[in-house]
Amino acid sequence: MNNYEMLNEIKTKQPVIHHMTNWVTIFNCAQAVKSIGASPVMAHALEEAAEMTSISSSLVLNIGTLTKELIEGMLISTKTANEKKIPIVFDACGAGASSLRNSSCLKLITERKIDIVKGNASEIASIAGYDVITKGVDSSDVEHSLSDIALNLSNKLSSVVVITGKSDYVAANGKVAVIDNGTELMGRVVGTGCIAASMIGCFAAVNRSDLFTASVAALSVWGIAGEKASAKSGGAGSFLLNIFDILSSLSEEDIIKNKKITFI
Amino acid sequence: MNNYEMLNEIKTKQPVIHHMTNWVTIFNCAQAVKSIGASPVMAHALEEAAEMTSISSSLVLNIGTLTKELIEGMLISTKTANEKKIPIVFDACGAGASSLRNSSCLKLITERKIDIVKGNASEIASIAGYDVITKGVDSSDVEHSLSDIALNLSNKLSSVVVITGKSDYVAANGKVAVIDNGTELMGRVVGTGCIAASMIGCFAAVNRSDLFTASVAALSVWGIAGEKASAKSGGAGSFLLNIFDILSSLSEEDIIKNKKITFI
Amino acid sequence: MNNYEMLNEIKTKQPVIHHMTNWVTIFNCAQAVKSIGASPVMAHALEEAAEMTSISSSLVLNIGTLTKELIEGMLISTKTANEKKIPIVFDACGAGASSLRNSSCLKLITERKIDIVKGNASEIASIAGYDVITKGVDSSDVEHSLSDIALNLSNKLSSVVVITGKSDYVAANGKVAVIDNGTELMGRVVGTGCIAASMIGCFAAVNRSDLFTASVAALSVWGIAGEKASAKSGGAGSFLLNIFDILSSLSEEDIIKNKKITFI
Repeated sequence: MNNYEMLNEIKTKQPVIHHMTNWVTIFNCAQAVKSIGASPVMAHALEEAAEMTSISSSLVLNIGTLTKELIEGMLISTKTANEKKIPIVFDACGAGASSLRNSSCLKLITERKIDIVKGNASEIASIAGYDVITKGVDSSDVEHSLSDIALNLSNKLSSVVVITGKSDYVAANGKVAVIDNGTELMGRVVGTGCIAASMIGCFAAVNRSDLFTASVAALSVWGIAGEKASAKSGGAGSFLLNIFDILSSLSEEDIIKNKKITFI
Repeated sequence: MNNYEMLNEIKTKQPVIHHMTNWVTIFNCAQAVKSIGASPVMAHALEEAAEMTSISSSLVLNIGTLTKELIEGMLISTKTANEKKIPIVFDACGAGASSLRNSSCLKLITERKIDIVKGNASEIASIAGYDVITKGVDSSDVEHSLSDIALNLSNKLSSVVVITGKSDYVAANGKVAVIDNGTELMGRVVGTGCIAASMIGCFAAVNRSDLFTASVAALSVWGIAGEKASAKSGGAGSFLLNIFDILSSLSEEDIIKNKKITFI
Repeated sequence: MNNYEMLNEIKTKQPVIHHMTNWVTIFNCAQAVKSIGASPVMAHALEEAAEMTSISSSLVLNIGTLTKELIEGMLISTKTANEKKIPIVFDACGAGASSLRNSSCLKLITERKIDIVKGNASEIASIAGYDVITKGVDSSDVEHSLSDIALNLSNKLSSVVVITGKSDYVAANGKVAVIDNGTELMGRVVGTGCIAASMIGCFAAVNRSDLFTASVAALSVWGIAGEKASAKSGGAGSFLLNIFDILSSLSEEDIIKNKKITFI
């Protein structure tokens, strides 16, 4: 399947994407998922975590506003997901910023098989054990090749590793793809990273056998949508209006002609 | 009061509408309520549930992102509401999708008098005991006459029962109204169902003696606002911009001329 | 520093603004902060409260959807903030509406040094011990000079006190400033008060030695942004689009020429 065929598959199958996510961007993630034709479920109660995951086609975790209880719920959901081979996307939002975040990340990636680990440079570097200073949930300077960091962590975890930023890096099985879609404005809108994880969740849901390709496709499509939205927008407000409109009307030409993907 | 007079009454009296709701659409519900002139209160702490309800003119519950603690709070609020004859709207968001949701719904409708029970076809069918498969929080196919399902549940609970969808059904006291306002785009925006419940809460607050009429009016007005917003919108983003603007400037002509209500 | 210089300082230093806030307007607060160039962190877990505050340049608290646990977290964060001289802005959202809110406010202002206490007329009057009836989170009539109420509370707490409304009042050290920027439409958008507190947090972060001047500047700049947004908007939806765009592109002329600040 090419990137457009995957998007069409999402529209056709309307996969349920179970999110356990943060309170800041929860609406935007749900709306982005719905805009491309999938079916978002945002549910975090411990008592229904397993059931909700088991009716879903992928599970998206985000620790932006984590609590101990939320992590407990994530441990339940990920257990079910692992048993049922439901792909898990883990957005390590703010990793490195507190002991709670670090220990929660560690717990999730060691006690469960996380299929796709995603973060910005400092978050992924923090998970990979590099010495970085995270500035809140925004990225800091990282003095290593992002490509190498992604590859190393990918090898260590046997997972797809995604580093988002000016360029996005996706590593798995010794391969790295660089995605150069997206624009500067996206970095000034709260939650574009969270939405990227939700997009990956949607593409993973329809391409379970190749999560590397699914992640690359999701980031390219999301970046292209962002480019189209940015071109029409004067700031974060108009971006958010435009992005939701554009996500529901992306054409084959948009997606195939504008993709900027390099394999290194 | 006709539908426009009720809307005017809301603007004039600015009733407080107490919500215990989900984290996904909490802002959109509050803004919709404020846009038509009512005063939204979103408060879920157990310790203030009774007090907040007692200063309110209606209580709107939504279990979209329920937890055990939120249900506990709802049991406190609904107790106060029942004692003080404050109308309760219950949006059974995701009913049928998990045991937690099913047992919570059951507890609320059996231990309290819920004045208005609202959901999509599969949610209401699930509460009514029909055998359905809920697909996340989106509606599934239901093989029964929606009108009959609404009527039967209404009789059983002595409540107003609302089923939203392509057409909306409102049943009470052996009567059924069908509202055909609204557009397809509304189904692609996250939270239009939640907002519909908030609208019902506003109209119920100013027409406590006739909650059937209040519910019908709310759904027609909300649907008309949605039609006007959809006509100007290219997707979910522009819909959300337009709907909040339109809700605050609906004219008598909009509401009276465009209403599509049939009593069956 | 004049108001524009402070805004520039925010863009240059990108201070981290730690919020422990409500679930209704959490996204809008984060986006507003990001739009003017600061770095929002929204984090409420008890276990990371101290760490998150300690890497921040100011702390913004809002009790709009408080729980007992959130207040516990606030007590941890404010302890750290006091120790490290990190300025605290406290938005007393809904003060007066419930015993939980009243006792939480009391606890925060007596056990900690709150640098800036902010609310609408009825909220501040309630904290100051005047007898008022709060109507949900919206303001009620208060029969005292707002200027006097602000001054008295400011003296009592040795804090900056901010009362927002048609005119905004800022009191500290026996001085009062009145800010007449802003428009009527802002009162019809949910969360403009919460965003005002976030703005104060941003300005306080870059002007710690003069929190009175920082608060006055923040309210004037926010009001001016609101005037520009309102002039282009037909309601709350278009206001929210426009305000986020405008916040990221305010010019020196906008801020200096349009400010309406009176010292009394």
